[in-house]
Amino acid sequence: MPLSNADLDTFTAFTERLSDAARQETLPLFRATLAVDNKRARDGFDPVTEADRNAEKAIRALIEETYPDHGILGEEWGTKDSQSDYTWVLDPIDGTRSFISGTPLWTTLIGLRYQTSPVLGVIDQCFIGERFAGISTDHHKKAWYERAGVKTEMFTSQCRSLKDAIITCTTPEMFSAAEHTAYRNIEAKTKLARYSMDAYGYGLLAMGRLDLVIESDLQSYDVQPLIPVVEGAGGIITDWRGESAAQGGQVIAAATPELHAEALSLLKSAAT
Amino acid sequence: MPLSNADLDTFTAFTERLSDAARQETLPLFRATLAVDNKRARDGFDPVTEADRNAEKAIRALIEETYPDHGILGEEWGTKDSQSDYTWVLDPIDGTRSFISGTPLWTTLIGLRYQTSPVLGVIDQCFIGERFAGISTDHHKKAWYERAGVKTEMFTSQCRSLKDAIITCTTPEMFSAAEHTAYRNIEAKTKLARYSMDAYGYGLLAMGRLDLVIESDLQSYDVQPLIPVVEGAGGIITDWRGESAAQGGQVIAAATPELHAEALSLLKSAAT
Repeated sequence: MPLSNADLDTFTAFTERLSDAARQETLPLFRATLAVDNKRARDGFDPVTEADRNAEKAIRALIEETYPDHGILGEEWGTKDSQSDYTWVLDPIDGTRSFISGTPLWTTLIGLRYQTSPVLGVIDQCFIGERFAGISTDHHKKAWYERAGVKTEMFTSQCRSLKDAIITCTTPEMFSAAEHTAYRNIEAKTKLARYSMDAYGYGLLAMGRLDLVIESDLQSYDVQPLIPVVEGAGGIITDWRGESAAQGGQVIAAATPELHAEALSLLKSAAT
Repeated sequence: MPLSNADLDTFTAFTERLSDAARQETLPLFRATLAVDNKRARDGFDPVTEADRNAEKAIRALIEETYPDHGILGEEWGTKDSQSDYTWVLDPIDGTRSFISGTPLWTTLIGLRYQTSPVLGVIDQCFIGERFAGISTDHHKKAWYERAGVKTEMFTSQCRSLKDAIITCTTPEMFSAAEHTAYRNIEAKTKLARYSMDAYGYGLLAMGRLDLVIESDLQSYDVQPLIPVVEGAGGIITDWRGESAAQGGQVIAAATPELHAEALSLLKSAAT
């Protein structure tokens, strides 16, 4: 079955239910004392919280109930294979380090893939009450921001050059040595750099407040929900070779093709 | 005239009026397109926005009207000397880099000094609707957090050791070479580091979500409003020699005396 705009509207409304269900699990635990453990101790500090696990469980339950044949790829509870064209991609708390430090820049990521393409994505920050969302198919692109019941269309900035750009990456420590050199070279050419934002930075990019995000070591469930938000707002998101970012790893998101090209040319040497 | 608790209550209520007045100027300009210029180009990117100037103007007008004899120390509009025991200390937008990148971690800082001591402070994040506040005198210490009309008392964490600590500094680029070495040595011993928070980090410290803030190159108006918030919540804030932080420069804020002492011993070599 081809994907229609009516389908996308239906799925969009469903992501709002999913985000609300996640919020019931995450919000009461934010700034509460909670047991934190290390999931990937080898990579440093990457805690999984109760909130993370319970939010994904709540989302999966709704998907199982509503679309029992759809596939699921989740950070916490793994992959549910399916013969369906649809796969839900979930990162219930992106930015766990923000979460445990009480910083309201963590988000819940919900994405929908049609066949291999991410077509719908939501970046939800429920403490502030912000939702960045987008749709991206070959024939339909849009992105919007919702707060206090008001939806506003989002567009990336017109920034075309590194010298005018605001850049972000979650932490320069996410980079290998070669990646770090390439990143620092780019950052030094920009107007301003910000850190510690995780997926929230891609929301700000879609909104036109930031111009460039360069990251590495991302997971597919980190990235796939972001792609429709960035593309829906008119931005470009790829890996460091300029190909699909959907598998994670090295990711670059830019407000304009010109900015993307300028940054990409400086990342080439470190692209894997 | 000695400072009474009743005086502090009156001044606390007044800071709420001041914060509200600032909000009228800052909030409409947040995430709007605005003219940005460089105030201290030699130090890199430190823009002053219309919001910054107008918010301080609004706050100063209320102070002049209500307490015409009080002194004022403001980031944007300078010093008003006075024979009074009272001086208001204002940083209308702390975290201008957060402001211009659309990140809701900038704050409005309002402090009150009695003679040479900061006794009352407010860290206000009006987009999220959060207010961190505190009082610190020899005989009276308290701190509280307000959101959606609900006030909650704040206490720093019980973290006593770097190995358990969450640390923040606005950016490692604020440090000189010697400072940077000392900071990185401490950061490497902690559990987790976060960046790009400005004064918001001190609010999270008072709230018990972060344990340690180490910074440098601060201005007196950056720091004085923070001191009563940190001390009121049971924390310790000093310069890197362990003396008053009120003049800015090198600042350390810690949740407990033990954590403060451990970090201070590692900062000593870079203390100026």
